[in-house]
Amino acid sequence: MDIFEYVKDACTRAAGAKGARAGASTALRTRVLLRAAELLLGENDAILAENKKDLARAAENGVPSVMLDRLCLTEERIAGIADALRAVAALPDPTGAGDTFTRPNGLRITRLRVPLGVVGMIYEARPNVTVDAAALCIKTGNAVVLRGGKEALFSNMILATLLRRALTECDLPADAVILLERTEREGVAAMKAQRGLLDVLIPRGGHGLIRAVTDGSAVPVIETGAGNCHVYVDAAADIDMALRVCENAKLSRPSVCNAAETLLVHSAIAAEFLLRFRTLTGKRLELRGCNRTCALIPGITRATDEDYATEYDDAILAVRVVDSVEEAVAHINRYNTGHSEAILTNDINTAEYFRQSVDAAAVYVNASTRFTDGGEFGFGAEIGISTQKLHVRGPMGLSALTTEKYFIDGNGQIR
Amino acid sequence: MDIFEYVKDACTRAAGAKGARAGASTALRTRVLLRAAELLLGENDAILAENKKDLARAAENGVPSVMLDRLCLTEERIAGIADALRAVAALPDPTGAGDTFTRPNGLRITRLRVPLGVVGMIYEARPNVTVDAAALCIKTGNAVVLRGGKEALFSNMILATLLRRALTECDLPADAVILLERTEREGVAAMKAQRGLLDVLIPRGGHGLIRAVTDGSAVPVIETGAGNCHVYVDAAADIDMALRVCENAKLSRPSVCNAAETLLVHSAIAAEFLLRFRTLTGKRLELRGCNRTCALIPGITRATDEDYATEYDDAILAVRVVDSVEEAVAHINRYNTGHSEAILTNDINTAEYFRQSVDAAAVYVNASTRFTDGGEFGFGAEIGISTQKLHVRGPMGLSALTTEKYFIDGNGQIR
Repeated sequence: MDIFEYVKDACTRAAGAKGARAGASTALRTRVLLRAAELLLGENDAILAENKKDLARAAENGVPSVMLDRLCLTEERIAGIADALRAVAALPDPTGAGDTFTRPNGLRITRLRVPLGVVGMIYEARPNVTVDAAALCIKTGNAVVLRGGKEALFSNMILATLLRRALTECDLPADAVILLERTEREGVAAMKAQRGLLDVLIPRGGHGLIRAVTDGSAVPVIETGAGNCHVYVDAAADIDMALRVCENAKLSRPSVCNAAETLLVHSAIAAEFLLRFRTLTGKRLELRGCNRTCALIPGITRATDEDYATEYDDAILAVRVVDSVEEAVAHINRYNTGHSEAILTNDINTAEYFRQSVDAAAVYVNASTRFTDGGEFGFGAEIGISTQKLHVRGPMGLSALTTEKYFIDGNGQIR
Repeated sequence: MDIFEYVKDACTRAAGAKGARAGASTALRTRVLLRAAELLLGENDAILAENKKDLARAAENGVPSVMLDRLCLTEERIAGIADALRAVAALPDPTGAGDTFTRPNGLRITRLRVPLGVVGMIYEARPNVTVDAAALCIKTGNAVVLRGGKEALFSNMILATLLRRALTECDLPADAVILLERTEREGVAAMKAQRGLLDVLIPRGGHGLIRAVTDGSAVPVIETGAGNCHVYVDAAADIDMALRVCENAKLSRPSVCNAAETLLVHSAIAAEFLLRFRTLTGKRLELRGCNRTCALIPGITRATDEDYATEYDDAILAVRVVDSVEEAVAHINRYNTGHSEAILTNDINTAEYFRQSVDAAAVYVNASTRFTDGGEFGFGAEIGISTQKLHVRGPMGLSALTTEKYFIDGNGQIR
């Protein structure tokens, strides 16, 4: 079977399971998740054995160590995955809620949250995402087609088998969770073509992966994760607070999408602020500066346009001195990815101008960009951070996996 | 200038206007709409003169009469357009509303409805859509780039000029409304490529136009309008009611997207129902039937798979006899476009199964599909009917032109 037919067949089976699952209650779906957690813990040794096969093959193929770490499962990590299943099970179900209104002609219109249908997930070699993504879809009544990185195939296969067993034991169709066991590169293009079978595609991973899924997809995509985030330290900033927040925004976890990548500093306080920031961060942080920054901090690399456009995901920070909040906003709106931006200022008008004018999902006044996160926002599950404007923006809770449907009750109304 | 550069330049100017408009109040935006209505009425003669140029050229080029009718403006139609401007002005503004919550660490998070940014509208040769689309965007604080059918160019140019004058008179940037005055076909592809400048594309028109915009767009699209709608007459239907509703769903206005295109009838009542329906509709309606339908109503054309997949938009109806509600649902989910579906039945369990299982924006029990419409649902403005699941589904109110943005207030929080 060619890969296109293989993917189409999987999506067709998932779509069939969607129909069969339409009547499944919240209680039943929750039971599946709790049962899956039990199965994972019970099969701990078998999972580790499959994971060892992946690790051995990956090591042979010279996979980088950071990727090996993400691929590696341990008894503790499996327990963590089971805990995550229970945490999703405990969340409120967004489906089935809605509002009702009655029109003058007597038609009663109910707008209800319902599952999207069939979700396609495309992600890297992280076995935990297999369980996590399936759990979110099961919880919200969606069927899911999973396409994980090929390096994690053995791990993903046993995890998917256990998830499917949990569905079957609860009398739900196993095909509500389908793992693509063929992982050639063309599978992604095949998924992008399944308009009418897949209702949405969600890429989870680095820029390359997200771009590969977004470009030319016939299936609608929810983009997540690209985060070229900025912190602007205004002339009216509390400098001590600004130093703490900038250090945190950049260095508390440089590899994540809500970490800062460029620091903008008002010229009125640039000399004091930058010298103290340099002392505070020292060798932990590489700075790349504009001309004025380089004049203040000798010996650092000159920042290029490409630096300003780069999400380093590393202990590197571009720095630019600006003469006004307007110049800071213009820089941000030129280079940002619509994720998270912060201003440090005690001037209420500057703060208001900044947050009205900056085009991003989350705009912070006097706080670190690092809080843009489903957990930190109190949404429970972590589906990702949407950097698009349609459907959902910013941290995504379970409701991002739902749509609305109108039920209209009449007694013979015609128009 | 090549067309790509021309379109990019227009989108850049609109994006600039978006920034300048960020602070415009609801009151100011409403004033623009009321002033535009005055200007339209005051320039009635000039508008008619420009419209005559379009009509003359279209007649020369052999444009079909139905298109000429849509292109044609009269004093009465201009008054209608001005009324529509006033009606949009009177609607509540969805932007600026939201909810606020405070996290345990003291961060105060406000989720606010905000404009999408820059909307690209692609539509056919209907001058009223120029004003209508611009009005919806002005009302919601969006900038808009308009790309209308080339046959309406003179009319669109004067209307856009008046809309821009209304903006200028209210001290708002004219570039919040930009009409593309170059209408070569490649302009559509150029708009689809303006990711980062255009926040959304909304096609309004027939299938060909919608498909041309959707396929391979780098800018997110809100799809509207495709309506292959079904009515299922169940064994437990009230036959008199079913006859009235089916007649209305098909014949009250066959050309619109919420009109029925296929009738499914349960075999237990098919003979009585179809003979009476044939008598009721007579020569006003062409039927194309499955084998069993053809046996009951001799002399009608046999329906093919292509018939079932076709949105006739005409006084033609495909008819199929089925043996169960499950068979009806399977037919619908195979052929429908996710718009509107109806069941006629007095059996509460059959009704519930139907509406849970049918995958569509609006599912009717004992009423005509013709009610799927922003006005009929009480949403005020008519942006279109979304047949996609992301962002907005079904009739779209003004809020479809907004997204959300998080404002986070802190006092130095770090993570």
